[in-house]
Order: sequence, then structure tokens, then C-alpha cells
Amino acid sequence: MFYHDGGQLQYPVRVEKPNPLFAKALQQAIGGIEGEMRVCLQYLFQAWNARGPSKYRDMLLETGTEEISHIEMLATAVALNLEGAPVSLQEDAARDPVLEAALGGQNIRHVLSSGLGAMAVDASGVPFNGSWIVGSGNIAADMYANVMAESTGRVLATRLWNMTDDPGMKDMLSFLIARDVMHQNQWLAVLEELGPEQLPIPNSFPRSEEAGEFSYAFMSTRKDPKPDAFDGSRWVTGRSIDGNGEFSFIADMQPLGDVPQLGMADPRTFAQIDQIAPNASARKRLREEVAGHVHDGDD
Amino acid sequence: MFYHDGGQLQYPVRVEKPNPLFAKALQQAIGGIEGEMRVCLQYLFQAWNARGPSKYRDMLLETGTEEISHIEMLATAVALNLEGAPVSLQEDAARDPVLEAALGGQNIRHVLSSGLGAMAVDASGVPFNGSWIVGSGNIAADMYANVMAESTGRVLATRLWNMTDDPGMKDMLSFLIARDVMHQNQWLAVLEELGPEQLPIPNSFPRSEEAGEFSYAFMSTRKDPKPDAFDGSRWVTGRSIDGNGEFSFIADMQPLGDVPQLGMADPRTFAQIDQIAPNASARKRLREEVAGHVHDGDD
Amino acid sequence: MFYHDGGQLQYPVRVEKPNPLFAKALQQAIGGIEGEMRVCLQYLFQAWNARGPSKYRDMLLETGTEEISHIEMLATAVALNLEGAPVSLQEDAARDPVLEAALGGQNIRHVLSSGLGAMAVDASGVPFNGSWIVGSGNIAADMYANVMAESTGRVLATRLWNMTDDPGMKDMLSFLIARDVMHQNQWLAVLEELGPEQLPIPNSFPRSEEAGEFSYAFMSTRKDPKPDAFDGSRWVTGRSIDGNGEFSFIADMQPLGDVPQLGMADPRTFAQIDQIAPNASARKRLREEVAGHVHDGDD
Amino acid sequence: MFYHDGGQLQYPVRVEKPNPLFAKALQQAIGGIEGEMRVCLQYLFQAWNARGPSKYRDMLLETGTEEISHIEMLATAVALNLEGAPVSLQEDAARDPVLEAALGGQNIRHVLSSGLGAMAVDASGVPFNGSWIVGSGNIAADMYANVMAESTGRVLATRLWNMTDDPGMKDMLSFLIARDVMHQNQWLAVLEELGPEQLPIPNSFPRSEEAGEFSYAFMSTRKDPKPDAFDGSRWVTGRSIDGNGEFSFIADMQPLGDVPQLGMADPRTFAQIDQIAPNASARKRLREEVAGHVHDGDD
Amino acid sequence: MFYHDGGQLQYPVRVEKPNPLFAKALQQAIGGIEGEMRVCLQYLFQAWNARGPSKYRDMLLETGTEEISHIEMLATAVALNLEGAPVSLQEDAARDPVLEAALGGQNIRHVLSSGLGAMAVDASGVPFNGSWIVGSGNIAADMYANVMAESTGRVLATRLWNMTDDPGMKDMLSFLIARDVMHQNQWLAVLEELGPEQLPIPNSFPRSEEAGEFSYAFMSTRKDPKPDAFDGSRWVTGRSIDGNGEFSFIADMQPLGDVPQLGMADPRTFAQIDQIAPNASARKRLREEVAGHVHDGDD
Amino acid sequence: MFYHDGGQLQYPVRVEKPNPLFAKALQQAIGGIEGEMRVCLQYLFQAWNARGPSKYRDMLLETGTEEISHIEMLATAVALNLEGAPVSLQEDAARDPVLEAALGGQNIRHVLSSGLGAMAVDASGVPFNGSWIVGSGNIAADMYANVMAESTGRVLATRLWNMTDDPGMKDMLSFLIARDVMHQNQWLAVLEELGPEQLPIPNSFPRSEEAGEFSYAFMSTRKDPKPDAFDGSRWVTGRSIDGNGEFSFIADMQPLGDVPQLGMADPRTFAQIDQIAPNASARKRLREEVAGHVHDGDD
Repeated sequence: MFYHDGGQLQYPVRVEKPNPLFAKALQQAIGGIEGEMRVCLQYLFQAWNARGPSKYRDMLLETGTEEISHIEMLATAVALNLEGAPVSLQEDAARDPVLEAALGGQNIRHVLSSGLGAMAVDASGVPFNGSWIVGSGNIAADMYANVMAESTGRVLATRLWNMTDDPGMKDMLSFLIARDVMHQNQWLAVLEELGPEQLPIPNSFPRSEEAGEFSYAFMSTRKDPKPDAFDGSRWVTGRSIDGNGEFSFIADMQPLGDVPQLGMADPRTFAQIDQIAPNASARKRLREEVAGHVHDGDD
Repeated sequence: MFYHDGGQLQYPVRVEKPNPLFAKALQQAIGGIEGEMRVCLQYLFQAWNARGPSKYRDMLLETGTEEISHIEMLATAVALNLEGAPVSLQEDAARDPVLEAALGGQNIRHVLSSGLGAMAVDASGVPFNGSWIVGSGNIAADMYANVMAESTGRVLATRLWNMTDDPGMKDMLSFLIARDVMHQNQWLAVLEELGPEQLPIPNSFPRSEEAGEFSYAFMSTRKDPKPDAFDGSRWVTGRSIDGNGEFSFIADMQPLGDVPQLGMADPRTFAQIDQIAPNASARKRLREEVAGHVHDGDD
Repeated sequence: MFYHDGGQLQYPVRVEKPNPLFAKALQQAIGGIEGEMRVCLQYLFQAWNARGPSKYRDMLLETGTEEISHIEMLATAVALNLEGAPVSLQEDAARDPVLEAALGGQNIRHVLSSGLGAMAVDASGVPFNGSWIVGSGNIAADMYANVMAESTGRVLATRLWNMTDDPGMKDMLSFLIARDVMHQNQWLAVLEELGPEQLPIPNSFPRSEEAGEFSYAFMSTRKDPKPDAFDGSRWVTGRSIDGNGEFSFIADMQPLGDVPQLGMADPRTFAQIDQIAPNASARKRLREEVAGHVHDGDD
Repeated sequence: MFYHDGGQLQYPVRVEKPNPLFAKALQQAIGGIEGEMRVCLQYLFQAWNARGPSKYRDMLLETGTEEISHIEMLATAVALNLEGAPVSLQEDAARDPVLEAALGGQNIRHVLSSGLGAMAVDASGVPFNGSWIVGSGNIAADMYANVMAESTGRVLATRLWNMTDDPGMKDMLSFLIARDVMHQNQWLAVLEELGPEQLPIPNSFPRSEEAGEFSYAFMSTRKDPKPDAFDGSRWVTGRSIDGNGEFSFIADMQPLGDVPQLGMADPRTFAQIDQIAPNASARKRLREEVAGHVHDGDD
Repeated sequence: MFYHDGGQLQYPVRVEKPNPLFAKALQQAIGGIEGEMRVCLQYLFQAWNARGPSKYRDMLLETGTEEISHIEMLATAVALNLEGAPVSLQEDAARDPVLEAALGGQNIRHVLSSGLGAMAVDASGVPFNGSWIVGSGNIAADMYANVMAESTGRVLATRLWNMTDDPGMKDMLSFLIARDVMHQNQWLAVLEELGPEQLPIPNSFPRSEEAGEFSYAFMSTRKDPKPDAFDGSRWVTGRSIDGNGEFSFIADMQPLGDVPQLGMADPRTFAQIDQIAPNASARKRLREEVAGHVHDGDD
Repeated sequence: MFYHDGGQLQYPVRVEKPNPLFAKALQQAIGGIEGEMRVCLQYLFQAWNARGPSKYRDMLLETGTEEISHIEMLATAVALNLEGAPVSLQEDAARDPVLEAALGGQNIRHVLSSGLGAMAVDASGVPFNGSWIVGSGNIAADMYANVMAESTGRVLATRLWNMTDDPGMKDMLSFLIARDVMHQNQWLAVLEELGPEQLPIPNSFPRSEEAGEFSYAFMSTRKDPKPDAFDGSRWVTGRSIDGNGEFSFIADMQPLGDVPQLGMADPRTFAQIDQIAPNASARKRLREEVAGHVHDGDD
């Protein structure tokens, strides 16, 4: 069960110079794939689906809940950046190109659909999509999904920080950037705590069932082999990261399979006659079968 | 079966000063969630699915058909607003910031994809989505869905009206705004005609099967209870709107359920070993089972 | 800012006979358009965007927070219904058609993607979509959006209740059904509290700007007029619901606008020549202009 | 402007043996990419956007309007196929595997969301998407889009015809299949009427601006050239279909461009240091700049 | 199996004057419905699914592979057009409206999400969608899908060509425009090689099963019949394009079906009482059944 | 530029017992978020956008190209699993529940849309979505995105392996599972090669600009603080994983921000009057202004 404290924000949100274009940009941190709705729901779903030691469930619930507060901060920031935004064409366009550019550049749905408030969309206006919420049931895969989410999330936050010179916005983002540091570390800490034997993920699949001769080989797909292409690079040299093999390099990978033979089409799928009938006489026969009486317009 | 009259419009559509940015905005009223494609298809699907008294089906068909004519008007308005729109960067950008802003601000797909015509997208260029079409099979739920659609639709139309100073566009929108008035009233009239006993929706579910002690209680989810938070507000005071209960206020809602216990993960889902094996020895055993021969790159 | 209480559920969630097909059905109440993710986020976004009297913001925050707990309950219910679900074809298919039907009927991504846990998708596996979250900035429109969401939500919950005979699931749904009663009443209570003058929505648009002669007229779009089609029906008779007009009936609506004349296509949009050039000689000239030297393959 | 005739169907729709699984399949012909919503809206948008000779606009409007009637027929067919469909698990599952399979196999949202009516989704339950509506502003491109839509549409209709043995459904589909014949012919008739010089599309682009030596050459992308791969095939032999060139065969296409050199990353995009700083000393300097005071948790 | 040659481009890609607005426009040719991801994947899926004569599979594989190289060229073009793009508001907005317009007009996710690189989205920022990939299993339908894709693709490319005056970009586009010529011709060549009896598609469906009297008739859906509407037009006159019928014109199409009678709603779908109970007494009875004890808030 | 070798497969694909339900499941590995289209396009886009040392670009191109071959293998596997699949209801349903379950359980669009071939959709039939393709411009974030993709990808592949007992399918999957091992190791090898100073990501953002006191603190969001909740857990104890701080635990996080004050609504957004006018007299005035002449239906 969940609670709130009457709307107080986790961290202050101030906007000194509202900027509707920055409001559009901030939407990426709300409804974008790198945004807070994604991490929030991802951690909560992972918590709710968690099987195994309960402390991981508990921890995911803690941080998933924190992320709701981040969405709240960003939604507030969007609303504040939209205060006084231009809402019509005539008053600005003909006169002041800067204002016109602002109206053209902003998310016009902030005027039309939300009445100068935040929406569940990204910076292009594309709606948040539930497919982004990863909860695989495998904790190591999920932790990497979380590290990735916080990494792209912090990259996004630094770009937003750089985009604005509003001190209030920079301050808010400095907090979110810090939290992303913690969360990157946190998910990696889970992996460390689980121990070094997490790889390959899933680590519960019997390795003997794997086509093991391809498990640690870098296969080049170059048309013209270049055997020294990655000499000295870590991914072709030395012990594999999971500690279970040696990296190798296959410079001239050859197809191991044949050209597939799907044969003729099933007549019940209504392909064209040439796909169904294997030769001229079969085609002729099928063509005759198909041609029945069709009422001509001039009958 | 449906008919047209050769393209004559339900109401005149004139554009005196074509404005590609306004064309972009108008797209919200075509392909946006508040737009005419949604109400048109929503009413038609509700009609086609209608069970029960036939007059509601008839009425939905009438108005669903009218809405096709509204899409037609708006599509025409978009095409007219795109007449003479800038279609290239070089001719405008380096010279005239207002024109450049126009090109940057318009939906560039109006140039690239539709050749200066309307598309089935919203003001951000996001395509119309069939999930928005609500036809629940329950007429009261559907009527509220329709009231809501016409309410957000009229809000949108007034914002578009305010955005432009083109007299032709203002005139067209004054018509659409008026029709939204009628349609709001119309769906509420159906609810009134059906009689006061429509709530709660669905009204055909046996109330005795409901956890009735929670049916009229406002539950606060505040971390720190505030018993007087809504003193005097209608939603915590007096007879419920449906007439079947009294509103009450639970200031300090407590969880009634436990923490869920999902247990260990099913090994066949290939979670990590720590999620599957309940203790150290089981983990050790599983780890040994899993580790089979894997061909090392240096074999 | 938001809090949790360590995972205790708002109401007990028990599953006596896990059923993966019911798990699939329950997904509609999580990630479907009638589901809890939608209402949760809708109320929270409406709260965060709320302008005007603060008590509506407060109330939306209260109930939006409660809805997170409903998602939690349903996600738990999905996970519990998936306990022991079939995860492979060979063990069931050839032998037991009921089990095979279960595997065919369930959401196979519950096996493949989530490892027997809930996902942010609907009962067809279609991901949750942020476009469903309505926060228009107009409180009356939003309240109707909320009534509609709770109406389709309760219809869904009663259908789920009817679909199962698991006592634990029926109990959980009896609670959610009750809460939907409250929330339907709650949003209507806001409208009542705001007073009778909320219609038409938005009520802040100057009525004189509206094409008022069409504001209360039911326009028939029948090909062959039927003047008595709705005799006695509320939507063609008597005072309008908003109290500002009289319903009337236009049985034979005629187009008020002309056939639009878009003219010839702009050559810079690269339409076909016949669309650009208005007559034979212009077409000939354009055709000659276009035909330049093209290198033939056999040059 | 548009009209209806009170719900009479263009062609009779009868269902003798309702089958909810067939209802699911029919959804493809409503809300799928090959379906009637797509062609309906595609023809209407093409009409509304039509520039150039008005008769094409008129014709598109005629047929677009006919397609609304096809959606109506199919929606009716879905509702009729859902009459008496199973709506709960307990009553069927434990007893009758055929009924259980039906419930598992049907679109469960037909029970949960629409109350046994049609929806704007495809056979997988994926919503109709406005991106499928093609109206390019170029009539020849649009005609091919329409031929393609009617071709995949008729293929779909024949597969549906084959899937059912309900005589009513077969009859309805025999009508839709016939109409698809007409419409395939119709769009090709437009192309014929426009004359043989429609290709390449658009035919208004100056051919001299094209890299003409590649305009009629089949370029093989085989790793190991096979010069006789398509000997005698039409696409490497003879006059091009547009009549403006000769087909040729390049068996050993070589890259004409270099490997792109994007250089180092812009520091303001917050790439990793190694992407920004070109050498060890620059990396060291940047690393020092970046490392500022960060408050340690234990300060 | 697939190969590359170390990143050399099929054709040179040069950008003299990077323009982030043009980068946004180019995205349509990558991730838009008319773009190269679509044709690439469409041809490859058609190849992989090909049944019937193998040479069509081979050819589709050839051209599908070429299209990967086109995506590569366009992605490179986007990255090059983003070199030096504005990434912050403060530095430009207050000072230089042209730069501000550029930032407002560009795809802001090119800054926020990709760090000045290409994305799998269209010019509006809407992600590529797999539903666009058509592979019907019927080769003639697929060929028309391909002609259509190359036609809208070439229209797009010419519009992009017209939009820019960068010589490098014009050169790259002149190559892509030429390739689109070839591919239009190529797919039509397949149809020609297959022979004239490809229509109607599918040509393997027995014509006698079709409602043949409607197969070659243009049905007018005009409210007021206009028998001479298309006099002389090809689609109402003469032999049908498929050679199997004569075009005719039905000026006054009448509904052949009745108004559907779906009857009362199934009580188990929880419609409103008025939809379920056919008369007043039944309604009264159902209303009484439904009304059970509900715990009042004030009990 | 890219090449193929005439359709030979990277690894053999054999299906001994075609199973259309397994074909549906395999679609997840093609068009699902964990599937091969995603990794293929993700690596290719990352390559094409790569800035900084060229060897990472080269490597991404190698592996991105390999992944095309994996899509090819899986598409072939889908087609082979669909050989002989049921395509109609009548022939199976009434007779054999196992076959009926198969038809109900399979992706019915494999019959209707693709004619028994693979599609660009996931196991629920939801189309591939370009938003899943992550290329952030930051190599470390991208590498974690890739590790995550290969981790969820290998989890998926092991579940598919477990689902089937077809030896050919198990063999194919044993190869894909092995390749996922390599690719997990490969992306982690890049991170190792880049050196230990990659965290936090991005490592080029000045740490002094961060709200550093929150960078390494686990903040509990429990309603009732539980200071010993995670005693001994790695994420609250010891040096942070990035080596730059010490983990700490804040058991009782308090809001640092106030309740936001957005004030009254802008009248130009057409909120309701109560949201715009701050007191009764202002509301009265606004109400009077708004009420203009509206033509009554009975005028």
C-alpha cells in the first residue's frame, strides 16, 4: 500500500524563467524511454513479481516509490515552465520571431490538450509505452536493465542540465543526477552481493546444452576477412568476463546451414497460382479450376 | 449503409491567411484523442454493437455519421492552411526567421508525407490509435465516455479558436463548438431519460456481492492522517450521488492484506540460482548441475 | 513525495486455484485502457497539473495514490494465478487438451518475458499507452473523464468477477468493485459541489462566439428524413440539460458549405504531372522539362 | 457531408453458428492493416486532400463512403458471432475442452472490454493505427497504395472465407471478395486512364537530377558474385517497365563511398571521456576537470 | 547469412552545411512508413517467407540487403547534419532567432536521447512500427506492396531533395531517387514476368464462390444519384483491367441487407438494466435482484 | 555496405514436428523487445552513430550484422513450424480439441496476414517498435543497454528451449544461447577495456555540479522508518561501486520541497470558471461575461 504527504516535493522545484521549449524537453524525463515513469514502474513491477530472497523485493519497492516522487517533481517543473506560455498565433507570430519560434518549438499539445500542464509523453509528444517496463523474472537481467535505465537516465538529465540556464532547474536536475548516481551504484551493488557467478545470465541454464564452441568466439561478419582487426582488444583476447572460457576470434565465419527449402505454398493460403502449382500443367489445371462463372457487368 | 453528397461540406470552411503551424494544431482535432476521428468511430462502433432498445442505436448512428462530416471539414481546413506553405529550407531559413520558424514549427510530414494535406495524426504527428474508441457494451458507461469525449473536444476547439485570428477558421470552429454543446447535452439527456437509477455503473451487478463497507468511503492515503482535510466537501459528506449510501471519511486507512509471499522461483523459468535455490547447499548443488562442459575458445 | 509500508496490501489477495488464463484476463485491469495504471496516472497527473482551488489537487492526490495500491494488488493476483502454470509444449500438448488449451489460451509472454509475473500490458498483450491519461486542465472535463474511467473500470471488474469462481479472486474483486462505486460517486460529487453551471464544458468560453443556432439542435443525418424518428425522446424535447436552451430536431440537415476547391497541386510537392498542369499543353511542357538525360543501362 | 439510411446493411449479414474464434479472426478485416477501416479512411483522406482534376476526388469519396458500410457489415458479423459466447472460466473449462479452447482462443477483450461487440483492433487485439492511412498527395503513388490495400484485403477475405463453414459468413465474404475485385480494377483503371507515362513515380521530378546510371541496374549484394544468377529474368533483361531505360545487372557492386568519419564526440552531449578526448593527456585533463567535490556519505 | 565491408558506404555521403532541421526531415526516410527500414525489412521478410519458385526469394534477398546499406547512408547523413547542432537554450534563444528556431524546429531528442545521432523514428519522432512490414505470402500482393513502398519512398526522396540546397545531400538523394526508379521497375517486372493472369489477387481463389454480379460494378454512394457522374471514365467503361469482366455503373445502390437485430444484452456482460430486461416488469424484477445489502457509510 | 550469401543460414534450422503454437512463441525472439530485431538494429544504429575511437564502431558493425543472420534463422524457424498448420475452423474444431486448441492458441495472423510466414511482431502479435532501439551516444550507457538486451535475450532463448522438445529447434536455440553468452561477455569486455573509471555514467559530467550529498545514499521511502531494514546489504554498506563514495542509509527521508503553488488557471486555456476566478465576485463577473446570446432551439 502507498501513501503521500499532501504534495510536498522530495526536493525543491523552482523555475525563474519559464520556457515552454524546456517544458517540452523535460517531457523526455517523464514519459520518455529514459524517463522516470519507466524506472518507477519497472522497479515496482519487479518488486511485485519478485521471487526468491525477499530483501530484493523490499529494496525495489523502496526505490520504485522514490521514483514516483521524481515524476511529481518533473511534472511540476513542466507546469511551471509553461506559466505564461504563448497560446495563440496572432499575438506573437507576425511581430516577434523569438516568440513565434517558441510557439513553433514548444509541444503544441501543452496548449491544446493539457492546458499548460505535464503529459505522459516524451519530448516528441509520443506517449509513454508499457513495453519499456522490463521485469524478466531473472534478477540479474533485471539489475542490468536497471543499470541501463539509470545510465541513459543520467545522460538525459545531464543534457537537460546543460540545455537550461535557469538556476532552479539546474538545482532540481543536480538532485536527479545525484540520485541516478546512487541508483546506478545500487543495482551494481546487488550484482556484487549476489556474487561473481551471475554470468552468463541466466546462470541456471545447464551449460552442457549450449553449443559451447560458439560461446566465447567473436565472429567476424566482414565480407573480406581481416584477421588482425581487433588485435589486442579485450573481446578477442584473454579470459572471458564470466571466467568460464577464453575469448577467440573467428575471422572468416562460414554459414553452417543450408539455404532453407520451404517448398510450394499451401493452396489454402491463397498465394498466387505460380507459388502453388509446381509446373506448367499444374498451373494450367489450377487456373481452370479457379476460373468459374463470374457475372459480367454487361450480362 | 452510408452516403455522401458529392463533397459539399456540412458548414463552410474558409481560410484567409493560410498558416502551416495552425494546420499542425488542427491535426489534434482530427487524429488526436480529443478529436473527431475518435468520436466518429466511437459512436459508430457503439451503434453497431448496441443491444437493448433500438432507439439508442439509431441515435448513435445519426451522430456518428455527422462526425464524419466534421473530419471532412477539418481535413479541408488543414489542406487550406497548407496552401503555399514553405517546403524547403534554403529559400527561407537564411533570410527570414519568421518563415524559418514556420518551417521548423509546422509538422514537417505535411510536406514530406502528405504533400500539403491532412493526415490521421495528432498535433505532435502521433498516429490515431484505435484503443481510444470506447464501446463497452454498457450504455451508461458509454454515455459518460461520450460526454467526456465531447468535453475534452470542446475544450480543444475553444483553444484552437483562441489560437487563430483567421475569421474563416474562427467561424468554422464556432460551429464545431456549438455542435459539441449539443452533443454534451445529448449524451446527458440519454442518461436522464434512462432514469436516475443508472449509478453505480453497471447497475446490473448484485450489490450484495460488493465489499459494501468500502463503497462510499473516501480513503485518505496521507502518510500523516489529517481528519479534517476535506471537512464540508461534498465527497465526504451527505448522501452519495447514486442515492444508495452515505459518504464517509477514513482518515487513517490501514493495509488489510499481508505482504505477499510468492516463494522461490520456478526453475523452469531460468531465474538466477539465488532465486531458485532456498539455501546455500541447494545453491551449490544447482550450480554444479548447471556447470557442464563448455567448449573453451582455446580448446 | 510518496511512501509505502513494506509491501502490505490494501486488501487481501488470495488465489486458491491458480489459472493462467485468468492471469491473462486480469492484465486488462492492470495495463488496459479500463485499468488501474490508467486511473492511477490520470489522477496523479491531474493533481500535479491542478490550477485553481487546492482541495481538488489534494483529493486527486489522495485517490491517485490509492490506485497505486490497486495495481499492486492486481499484479500480485497475476503472479499468484501463474504459480505452476504450464511452461512447455511437450509435457502437456500431446496428452491433455485442457492443459494444452490453457497454454494456448494464456498470455505466452507470461512465460517468455516475465517469468510468471505481471506485465504492463492489457489482456491481449498490448502495452499500456500514455495517451490514455487524460488531464485537460479543465476540471469538469477531467471529472467526466474520471467518471468514465471508473465506469468502464467497474464494468470490467464485474466481468472479471463473473469469469472466475476462485473465492479469493472474487473477494479481491468485490473490494475493487466497491472502490469503483466510491470513485464514480466521488467525481460526480465534485461536479455537484462545483454547482450546476458547469455545462457546457468549458464554461468559460463566451457563448456569443458560438454558432448558437446549432447548439441545441439534434441534426439527423438520415438519407431519407424521418421527422418523427425520436418523438418524445429526451434529446429532441424540452430544456437542454445545461439549462441554456431548448432541444430541437432538424430532420433534413442540408450542407451549408460548398465543395472545397483545392486547385492544382504545388509542383514542389512532386505530385503527378496531371495534378500539377491544368491542361494538355501545360502537361506537355512539364513532361518535356522533366525528361532529362537518364543514363541507360546499356550505354 | 455524409448520410446513413437507418442502419440497413449494404449486403445481408447472417451467422448461423456463432463462433467467438471467428469473431476474433474477423477483427483483422476491421482494425487490421489489411482491413476496412484502413481503406475507408485512406480513400476519404485521399479525397479530402485531392488536388488536380476533381473527378478523382469524387471517385475516392464514392468508394471511401462505400467502405464505411463494409466496416458496418463486419462489426455486425463480429457481434453476431459473439452471441452466446463463453464469458466465464468455471462453467466451461473443467468440463469441456472444446469450450475451454474457445474461451482461450477468442479475444478475451470481446468479453472484458466490449461486452460481446466489435472493437477497433486487429485479430491479435492490436489497435488500429492511423499511420497505415496513406495519402501522399501523389495520385499514382496513392493508386498503388490502394491496389496494394485491396490486394492484401482480398487475400485476407479469401482466408476468412476458407476458415469458416458458416453459410451466412461465406455469403457475406463472397460479397466483400467481389468488391475487392472491383476496387483492384478500379485503381488500376485510374492508372490506365492517366496514361502510360506515370512511371517512375513521381513523374514530375526532373530526370536529369537523378544519378541515372543506377536507375535501371539490378545491383547484386551477394558476397560472392554470381553473374548468371538471374539470366533471363525480366528484371535484368530488356526495356524497363517505365520504357525509359534498359535493365542491366551489376553482379559485383562495390562500395562507392568511404567509411564515414564522425570524429570525436561533442563534450556537451556527455559521451564517455574516451569518446570526447582524443588522447591520453586530453583524457587525463578531462577526467580531472570532471572530478569535483562529491559529498561522501560518510562526511 | 549477412556480411559487411567494414563500414564503407554504398554511395558517398557528404554534408557541407549541417542542418539539424534537415536531420529531422531525413528521419522520415529512415524510420518513417515511406522509409528504408520498412522496405529493407519488408523485402527480407518476404524473402524468408517465400514459398514457390526460388528465384523470387533470391531476388528479394538481394534487394533487401541493398536497403540495409541505404539505412546506413541515411543514418550517416543524419549524424553529419547534427554536427555542431545547438544543444542548449540559453546560448541561442535570447540572441538569435534563427538559431532559436533551429533548436525549436529540430527533433530535440537528437540532443536528448541520441547525442546527435540517428534514431529509429520518423520526422515527427514517432518510432518505426513493425506493422508496416507487409509480407502476405501472396507474391502479387507483395509486389504491389513493394511498388507502393518505392513510390511513396521516391516521392519522399524528391521532397527531401527539394528541401535542401546542400550539394552533398542532393547528390546522395539523387542516388536514392535513382534506386527507387529501379525498384519500382523491378517489382513491376516481376508482375510482368508472372504473366497477365495475376489479377484479381489472389488469382487462386475460385471465382464461382464470389458474388460475381458485384465484381466489376462501380457503386455510387451518392445520396442523390448522378448517373452521368463518371461518363467516359475508365473505371465505369469497357473491359475490366483484369480482362475478366466489363465495368458498369450502379448510380443508385440500395441496401441489400436489413437493419441488424442484436436483441437484448446478455446479463452476464453487465450492461445496464434497460439493455438487459425487455420490459418494465422485467426491469423491476432485475432491479430488485440487484439491490442487495450495501453497507452504508453511516452504519 | 552489406552483403548476403544467397540465403545460406549461419546455423542449421530444422523442425521435425511443426507446431504453430511454438511459431507464435518464437515471434518473441524476432519482434519482441528481447528479440533479434532489437539487438540487430540497436548495434547497427550504435555503430552508425559512433563517435570516438573507431574500433567500437567496427565491432558494433560486426555483431549487428551477425544479428541479421539470427533474424533470418528465426524467421525460417517460424515458417517451418507453420508447415501444415490448421487454417480453418470447421475441419478441426468440432472434432479434435487438441487441434482446435492449436488453432485457438496460435497467432491467427500467421494464417490471415502472412500466409504461414514470420512477421515483425512479438508473441502477442504486437508489432516491433523502434523506440526499443537504444543508441544514446554514450558508449558506456550503450554497453549496459546491450548487456541488458543480451541478458533478457538469453533468458528468453532458454525459455523457448525449455518449451519445445523438437530436437531441431533445441539445436538452433543451443546456438543462439551460446551466442548470447559471447555477446554478454563482449559488451562487458568493452567496459573492462575502457577502464574502471566509467562510472557514474556519463563520466564526463562535472561532479561538482551534482547534489553530492545524495549521490551515495539509499533513501528509504517507508512510511514507518525501519533503520535496520537492509543491515549488511551491499547497497547501504561500504565503498560505492564506482569507488567515489560511501554508501549510506537514510531511513527517514523527509520532503525537502514545499507543496507546489501553481495558482489560478490562465483564462486563455478555458479551464472552468472556478479554476480561473479566485473569488465569488470574480466568478460572478466572469460568468456574466461568458453568457452571451445563444440562439435557443425554439427562437
